[in-house]
Amino acid sequence: MDQSTTSKPHERLATVLAGEMEAVNRLIRDRMASEHAPRIPEVTAHLVEAGGKRLRPMLTLAAARLCGYDGDHHIRLAATVEFIHTATLLHDDVVDESAQRRGRPTANLLWDNKSSVLVGDYLFARSFQLMVETGSLRVLDILANASATIAEGEVLQMTAATDLRTDEEVYLKVVRGKTAALFSAATQVGGVIAGAPERQVQALYDYGDALGIAFQIVDDLLDYQGDSRATGKNVGDDFRERKLTLPVIKAVARATEEERSFWQRTIEKGRQEEGDLDHALGLMKKYGTLEATRDDANTWADRARAALKALPDGDLRDMLHDLAAYVVARLN
Amino acid sequence: MDQSTTSKPHERLATVLAGEMEAVNRLIRDRMASEHAPRIPEVTAHLVEAGGKRLRPMLTLAAARLCGYDGDHHIRLAATVEFIHTATLLHDDVVDESAQRRGRPTANLLWDNKSSVLVGDYLFARSFQLMVETGSLRVLDILANASATIAEGEVLQMTAATDLRTDEEVYLKVVRGKTAALFSAATQVGGVIAGAPERQVQALYDYGDALGIAFQIVDDLLDYQGDSRATGKNVGDDFRERKLTLPVIKAVARATEEERSFWQRTIEKGRQEEGDLDHALGLMKKYGTLEATRDDANTWADRARAALKALPDGDLRDMLHDLAAYVVARLN
Repeated sequence: MDQSTTSKPHERLATVLAGEMEAVNRLIRDRMASEHAPRIPEVTAHLVEAGGKRLRPMLTLAAARLCGYDGDHHIRLAATVEFIHTATLLHDDVVDESAQRRGRPTANLLWDNKSSVLVGDYLFARSFQLMVETGSLRVLDILANASATIAEGEVLQMTAATDLRTDEEVYLKVVRGKTAALFSAATQVGGVIAGAPERQVQALYDYGDALGIAFQIVDDLLDYQGDSRATGKNVGDDFRERKLTLPVIKAVARATEEERSFWQRTIEKGRQEEGDLDHALGLMKKYGTLEATRDDANTWADRARAALKALPDGDLRDMLHDLAAYVVARLN
Repeated sequence: MDQSTTSKPHERLATVLAGEMEAVNRLIRDRMASEHAPRIPEVTAHLVEAGGKRLRPMLTLAAARLCGYDGDHHIRLAATVEFIHTATLLHDDVVDESAQRRGRPTANLLWDNKSSVLVGDYLFARSFQLMVETGSLRVLDILANASATIAEGEVLQMTAATDLRTDEEVYLKVVRGKTAALFSAATQVGGVIAGAPERQVQALYDYGDALGIAFQIVDDLLDYQGDSRATGKNVGDDFRERKLTLPVIKAVARATEEERSFWQRTIEKGRQEEGDLDHALGLMKKYGTLEATRDDANTWADRARAALKALPDGDLRDMLHDLAAYVVARLN
């Protein structure tokens, strides 16, 4: 087998885009510096250096290159996207009162909620400055709309999460806000900055949107059936935090009266007892909702791959294609 | 006496700009609506309808009109500025753990910290969409830079507030972030959208900057010598919250060794006892720092008035002139 089939697609992307990602990382370090407030680089370095997969900036770089871009604004946009992502994580941790992120203590635990809120705001402002530097109003429009979708989705999640009336349509809105809006903006702005034809820009949006949705559905599924050593999360965290995600929403939709009372007590009222998580998992098994959720994730991954057909073929397109498969392959 | 000398300058501005302010308020209500997340208009209405003086959006409208603007983008920019201000207040209340704002319970008390963080983010995103609609990259650049200054100032305040090494230079940076950056952006974008010559745009920036600094110095002074019925705050809140502001910074700069220990214990270590506030006030009196702070506020108000000379004369300029005087007249 050659290297292209053995290594993970995001690792192959990282190899191909290594030079540009280095420029992105330099720009990130440069712009998170603050002459007057050393707390800012402290907090962001903690998170940025912890090193997620840097998937979002790589999507922007890959999209721009795929559309033949040879300028350097895609570096700024990749850093923009990573800043927005990091800012969102900082605010999420305050909202969720999380203690761990990427296997390390969260900033709100190491410093305080104040630092997380304000440094998050600072990163948003920095990302805003970076995108203005590209001089593209279309890019600004896309990122402004993505920001609004993200924020609205977060608020919606807060109020909808413990409400048993939350159906799959509302779940999809939450998921777009939580994950897909930034994925689709990341790919779309890559095409826009490259001056790609509208059909390709739309395809990049569709790819990012579907990839993001598949990614989040898989995340929510792994919460119930993942290996905690691999995911860095404990099985059933969402249940304990009373977050309605797809596997439970599907089970609630088919619940008997007695089962409904169980969901009301544990999710709506949050009165959980020993053994409740096992009972919840039993109900998901009874209705096959984990399998049904996996089917949904596969459908979105298929849509992501289908969208790529409108884009120029080549290595980068192949990697994006494989990435969509890999996102759901995490389930195996 | 005619009406122009008896009523307050911001009330005269409100009268002259009434039609446009109504359009701004309509736009604000329209854009804070959220189809999916009713929590958003609930939280923002609580704050927006509480009705501050709407000084910032009036500054934008006045600046645009003063420079002869007759389009409608200044309405969008005025709403933008108010959204940014409101978002900042929501995040501030989380950071300060405040219980009251504008004489009403804060959103974080009525709802929770989550709502304040996320709805604040939503308002930032909405403000961003509004400014993109003006299609002016210069406006976007100004507001991106103001956002960064605001966020950096907030972080700086958090770390500098309880640090006795904080001097007047650092204080000024905090004040610019906290207040003056949005004032100067508010006036400057009014001139930019009107296509005013660079000299006038600079004058509008200088006016907003100096007005904002005067405004904040007065606020900090009123904390120590204000009438709590008029200010809605208790005397000495900043002392109790261990916030180093100008009257104390000036007293610390001249402190004897014993007095320095007092400031270290009360501000740096936060170990406050009964009678400490009175002792602190005594030290401010001893060195005349309240008077010196008032002199500083007057100097900035003078600078604001001087900047106006570069702008077309007429009623609006007179009102802005009087506004600078009024801001410090709150002290009497």
